[in-house]
Amino acid sequence: MSVPADLLALDARDPLSYKREEFALPDDLIYLDGNSLGAMPKAVAQRLQHVLDEEWGRQLIRSWTGEADWMSLPDRVAAKIARLVGAKPSEVAVGDSTSINTFKALAAALHQTPRKVVLTDADNFPTDLYMAQGLNALLGGQLELRRVPSDQIAAHLTPDVGVLLLTEVDYRTGRKLDMRGLTAAAHAQGILTVWDLAHSAGAFAVDLNGCEADFAIGCGYKYLNGGPGAPAFLYVAERCHAAAPVFLSGWMGHADPFEMGREYAPAAGARRYVVGTPTVLSLSALDTALDVFADVDMEVLRQKSLSLTDTFIRLMQPLTQKHPLTLATPEAHAERGSQVSYHHPDAKNIMNKLIARGIVGDFRTPDILRFGFTPLYHSHADVWRAAEGIAEVLA
Amino acid sequence: MSVPADLLALDARDPLSYKREEFALPDDLIYLDGNSLGAMPKAVAQRLQHVLDEEWGRQLIRSWTGEADWMSLPDRVAAKIARLVGAKPSEVAVGDSTSINTFKALAAALHQTPRKVVLTDADNFPTDLYMAQGLNALLGGQLELRRVPSDQIAAHLTPDVGVLLLTEVDYRTGRKLDMRGLTAAAHAQGILTVWDLAHSAGAFAVDLNGCEADFAIGCGYKYLNGGPGAPAFLYVAERCHAAAPVFLSGWMGHADPFEMGREYAPAAGARRYVVGTPTVLSLSALDTALDVFADVDMEVLRQKSLSLTDTFIRLMQPLTQKHPLTLATPEAHAERGSQVSYHHPDAKNIMNKLIARGIVGDFRTPDILRFGFTPLYHSHADVWRAAEGIAEVLA
Repeated sequence: MSVPADLLALDARDPLSYKREEFALPDDLIYLDGNSLGAMPKAVAQRLQHVLDEEWGRQLIRSWTGEADWMSLPDRVAAKIARLVGAKPSEVAVGDSTSINTFKALAAALHQTPRKVVLTDADNFPTDLYMAQGLNALLGGQLELRRVPSDQIAAHLTPDVGVLLLTEVDYRTGRKLDMRGLTAAAHAQGILTVWDLAHSAGAFAVDLNGCEADFAIGCGYKYLNGGPGAPAFLYVAERCHAAAPVFLSGWMGHADPFEMGREYAPAAGARRYVVGTPTVLSLSALDTALDVFADVDMEVLRQKSLSLTDTFIRLMQPLTQKHPLTLATPEAHAERGSQVSYHHPDAKNIMNKLIARGIVGDFRTPDILRFGFTPLYHSHADVWRAAEGIAEVLA
Repeated sequence: MSVPADLLALDARDPLSYKREEFALPDDLIYLDGNSLGAMPKAVAQRLQHVLDEEWGRQLIRSWTGEADWMSLPDRVAAKIARLVGAKPSEVAVGDSTSINTFKALAAALHQTPRKVVLTDADNFPTDLYMAQGLNALLGGQLELRRVPSDQIAAHLTPDVGVLLLTEVDYRTGRKLDMRGLTAAAHAQGILTVWDLAHSAGAFAVDLNGCEADFAIGCGYKYLNGGPGAPAFLYVAERCHAAAPVFLSGWMGHADPFEMGREYAPAAGARRYVVGTPTVLSLSALDTALDVFADVDMEVLRQKSLSLTDTFIRLMQPLTQKHPLTLATPEAHAERGSQVSYHHPDAKNIMNKLIARGIVGDFRTPDILRFGFTPLYHSHADVWRAAEGIAEVLA
């Protein structure tokens, strides 16, 4: 069997096909896990070598303020991410992990309301729940973490809720929530929003400003391809800056770090949410990785993403008739991120077999087969080969 | 002028002279700022290339659990740091910044006491003060941050103090506090201790267990040479594990992260203080950098450090007669870290001139010339050349 002509035709007119060359990907893999760890942009290796040899190795401490200007590196990376998520550069801070940024955002949002209820998706990504639990413990249990199924969120936007904490795209099902509608509905009840964009940023155009989102957090190592454990980001809407305090107030978020004053004074804009010394090696990798997006129209990327996931769902459809395989991802485009997932009672075992064959997706408890599609480095032919391999393993 | 024979003789019998070759350092620099950013161990470049090409580039997501075993990387690095600071591996967590770890340690320590006073050195490193201020703001101002001069700390260990937050070696003067004595005096008053080892770890043998320290934090990018913004570490004494809660409770500190449970359950030991996804690139650099210490006897390193700083103080002594230059660092060995500092009214300008000549120390407000000595890559000849250069600039 070879790749069907209609898919080859789609690839032939793919406006993003030239991006594949910018990534280091083994030829013997179909890598469908960029939603867990994005592939490496080739330029990252060159950048890291320069950072090591020249910036650290030769310029040493002088790189903080010299040509390398490590001091402004978080801001430069923030500006690149801001473009992808529909924010102003001054609304984005880069650094720390998504978990730590969840803490920052949630603590700052809760400070802007007397209400003590945090409403969230019961199936939110665990670390978002854990960080909320930790914050609540620190505050002596004064919060209520109210967890409801994602399809009942809208019905639970009641006037006792202070903050709505949601991940836009569910990490297991790939179900995409209506950020614009839910944010508006939350605001109508005086509720502030914290959006986790872990599976959104870099996967499709996000419009934080357009949605009037209050706070958001996101991950650098999935669709942004920043490398394992890449620094994360935090978005705070400009209108929230004055009232949003900084509780993780470190010297790198100070208005003048090298004044070494004894009292904390926040830097302008979101920079105040940078805490400790930036992890320059990891941050430099993310900085270069983001350049892959410089010439990419995110609407074009979204169209290709939908074409890839549509194709995968179509090719997999016959298998759902023959096997105990159930589509977990919504078919409606507006409700889908850039991944497709299936339930299967033997999902863990099946995924291990797929990985052994070079088709790398991942398993998520309890029974999810998860396949991420990255328009920057996948072709429709890849989708076809993946579906073929899955058919063989299931058979 | 050439290097005096007595100094050449000291270098000739230096048991650590062979370590210099392990670092990438430009020949035209005398780099006396390893207390701000340690020099790069050459092996780091090779390690990073492997992490990029093989672990990330080729193995991709499989590196979390496969041969690279990124999941256990924080623990492996923790074990290497534990040896240098006199702790058990299970008492050290690696990740995040020193600032974030200060927050974790202080919040956990305060939870173990009903007292609300945090006693600290008024001249503590700013970010330690800022993080305490931020925690206090989050807790609604219920804490009192009591700041007293470092020579009055002992007199202020009163029964209303809950936590003593100190940096062992002052970042400006290089003055080393008596960790053992102050910890014992604090414990006698029912006070818990949080020691910041930013200028201690890797500079000399630290004995946290022997001092019965409760909590400690430290920096990966100074004397540990882990690279700019390297991950930091947190020490929590074993006896505090049961009672010390985790307020920054992220999925990587969970007992079983991939169970993806909805309730946080802490991992065993200090691993629970790992929060988000480890920054693998920066953490790998630190991991390899620590190998430089594998064959180093820390007592030998300390003896060389004192010999270097003694030599510098002796060579600089005539200059303090001719210029408005005053030694800021204690002459008693027990009170000295691995740096020597001087006050000079024109310190900033002088340091700029020194750096332009390739003698790289740093300036700290308001009037401090700071010179760090690193026994792993400095010779007594380097010390002499630095003092000669300083004499010329002062003249």
